[in-house]
Amino acid sequence: MRTLSKDVAANIDQQVTVQGWLHKKRKLGGLNFINLRDRSGLVQILIEDKTEVEKLRGMQIGTVLEITGKVVADERAFGGAEIHEPNITILVPVTDEPPIEIDKPISHKSEHLDTLFEHRNISMRNVHETAIFKLRHTMLREIREFFHNNEFTEIQTPKIQGGASEGGAEVFKFDYYGKEATLAQSPQLYKQALVGAFERVFEIGQAYRAELSATTRHLAELTMLDMEMGFIDSHNDVLEMTQKMVHTVLTNLYEAEAEKLKMLRAPELVIKPEFPRFSVAEIHKMYSDATGEDTTKEKDLIPAEERWICEYATKELGCELVFATDFPIEAAKFYHMIDEEKGTVMWGDLLFRGVEIATVPMREHRYDKLVQQMKNAGANPEDPFFAHYLSAFKYGLPPHGGFGFGLDRFLQLIVGLNNVKEATLYPRDINRLAP
Amino acid sequence: MRTLSKDVAANIDQQVTVQGWLHKKRKLGGLNFINLRDRSGLVQILIEDKTEVEKLRGMQIGTVLEITGKVVADERAFGGAEIHEPNITILVPVTDEPPIEIDKPISHKSEHLDTLFEHRNISMRNVHETAIFKLRHTMLREIREFFHNNEFTEIQTPKIQGGASEGGAEVFKFDYYGKEATLAQSPQLYKQALVGAFERVFEIGQAYRAELSATTRHLAELTMLDMEMGFIDSHNDVLEMTQKMVHTVLTNLYEAEAEKLKMLRAPELVIKPEFPRFSVAEIHKMYSDATGEDTTKEKDLIPAEERWICEYATKELGCELVFATDFPIEAAKFYHMIDEEKGTVMWGDLLFRGVEIATVPMREHRYDKLVQQMKNAGANPEDPFFAHYLSAFKYGLPPHGGFGFGLDRFLQLIVGLNNVKEATLYPRDINRLAP
Repeated sequence: MRTLSKDVAANIDQQVTVQGWLHKKRKLGGLNFINLRDRSGLVQILIEDKTEVEKLRGMQIGTVLEITGKVVADERAFGGAEIHEPNITILVPVTDEPPIEIDKPISHKSEHLDTLFEHRNISMRNVHETAIFKLRHTMLREIREFFHNNEFTEIQTPKIQGGASEGGAEVFKFDYYGKEATLAQSPQLYKQALVGAFERVFEIGQAYRAELSATTRHLAELTMLDMEMGFIDSHNDVLEMTQKMVHTVLTNLYEAEAEKLKMLRAPELVIKPEFPRFSVAEIHKMYSDATGEDTTKEKDLIPAEERWICEYATKELGCELVFATDFPIEAAKFYHMIDEEKGTVMWGDLLFRGVEIATVPMREHRYDKLVQQMKNAGANPEDPFFAHYLSAFKYGLPPHGGFGFGLDRFLQLIVGLNNVKEATLYPRDINRLAP
Repeated sequence: MRTLSKDVAANIDQQVTVQGWLHKKRKLGGLNFINLRDRSGLVQILIEDKTEVEKLRGMQIGTVLEITGKVVADERAFGGAEIHEPNITILVPVTDEPPIEIDKPISHKSEHLDTLFEHRNISMRNVHETAIFKLRHTMLREIREFFHNNEFTEIQTPKIQGGASEGGAEVFKFDYYGKEATLAQSPQLYKQALVGAFERVFEIGQAYRAELSATTRHLAELTMLDMEMGFIDSHNDVLEMTQKMVHTVLTNLYEAEAEKLKMLRAPELVIKPEFPRFSVAEIHKMYSDATGEDTTKEKDLIPAEERWICEYATKELGCELVFATDFPIEAAKFYHMIDEEKGTVMWGDLLFRGVEIATVPMREHRYDKLVQQMKNAGANPEDPFFAHYLSAFKYGLPPHGGFGFGLDRFLQLIVGLNNVKEATLYPRDINRLAP
């Protein structure tokens, strides 16, 4: 019967059998110690018997072991106990030294990232790396829980599409049984249509961007959280649902995973249930007044403004999440709802720790108006891809809105990583197709 | 304040406001009735006032309505109540008749499937169709719950790969920044490697098969559930975890969604906590004895045998889930663990209602043996794709096994649909790239 390392301390003075990986070998005052790693953490083992010490000669980090021994209380060890008088069995020997150190925190400096990813199957064994992706597990779980509790249906829309959902050239194309297909940039047109069936839908799935840039913010294959909700009274309903979701997920995650976040030296959470809201014009004005740099002519926020407004809101308003709303009309896409009175787009960006993590618009749901906006944008309503999309409106779609939310980026910011790729198991970008 | 249709009956004699889609118009004994559909179901409204009747003239199914009226108990109506004296507001008019009937069960006969999919954005509004995908939501939720409770970490591996994970020609290829990339057929090699970091992992994600067949069993884009677990004592540990997962998910799903399953006329569940197990050789013998058709020379089970053994187990053993184990050695792939004594592969197929839904093998985890098996299979261990895979073994992977589980097919069989495409929102196959 195997005992996990986290349960060893509950068996003081008992015999236990643990299984795991040789994680560290140490000599301390003439005594031989090893750390064993399993899915629940680390356990320390004191080896005094020469025969047992000899078994491990030449065995490298990663060697798979089964160890039976006696549990002894020791407050200096992980969890307050260690194993003495071990009987060691080598399940899988490792005789070569691993290509990357896995028994101390791995450098995430930009010049070391390539090494980290080149040996991803091995670097992932570092307890700091696994902690990041266990956080990811909890993040996904909290998100799904929230949407389930709010009567959203989880959907899975096709990633193989016959047209480019967002338009533009940045799509991967391939031959699909003799036809040209693209990899989905977003499930947006599908999720909007499905409001007609489920009212409230969400999807966690891959999205593809054939971007020609290699920045710390971009991935060619990313994980998007998409949500769409119908029967809204106004754009405000969408912003409120977004706010409630993010507040719930972050506060639950920080509570449930406090230990891992501390180990990873993640920033403290500064949050309020109501996120501060500023229009894009207001932010331009506030930023220009504060810095002397005139941004009032910009249509979107510049990155420096995103950082500035988040810092401002954190310090002055006690919340590091901010909505930037009322985007200028020049930023509109054909599917956006225009606020005719204000002359702005009903579109909010959610900013977190200085970075945009979600776009949260209301959609144009009136068929005639949508067709007109599509034509104005140069899209052809008779293209079969768009025609099917439009059919959802022709046969009745209520007022609706939703968001596209970058989950890799969200996790990156939660942990405080410099590069979105570090929040992805096997990142894909312009330079990386392997492993 | 909006009331959902499911909550109408809780407001007898009160005024409520409902919002939804015009789902049906009926005249009954000179009285005008409509059904309104929202995400929670249907509600019936009696319209007596001529002005209100007039408002709906020319309005087709799908018209988006807001209706305020008085709730009256009526046991003939959905949920035991209907709305009287309505004041109707048309939120979104629909003036064209929908291209597909959505107010009665849609034909799923094979000759009608193309129409069903051609108008998917509209056909999805049928309450029978939405019920299928709400079941899918619950199925996914129960699966994740099970794995979370059993300390599995949810992973997301890349669907863009530099090599063909399963080999073979049935892959979609495309240009990835000047390199050749493929769409993942399976996350298998990644999930095996991640056993080295997390011990227990699962993934629910898309998989791609460029198969040239158009059958009721195949999709070009499918949803796979993949699991992998380390530190197993034998193949039996993997079969037991699989059995426990399937038993938990099915019994919970049948309990939680009894109403929808009944509406869809899904088959009754016949299950036991321990699924019957037969070796492939035993099934060949039993089938040959029973039918007179000699299958003892086949390396895999033939479809007729899969159906036969499931029927046998259902009738004789009270369980419609069956493991077929000990596949003949000729069926082995390079990553399989061979049972040298028996001369078979440690590979079990899980059969459900006559169809294989999962392959459940134990893997070869010994580096030297794996390299040898790879070479024997004609794969090159120095190919960078395989070299990175092998590094996980070189630096210590414990004995492990897992499964690849087709979720579209699982849902198809649960509901009792004829074609796997009916269990998919927007199916992709050799003939279908849209919508």
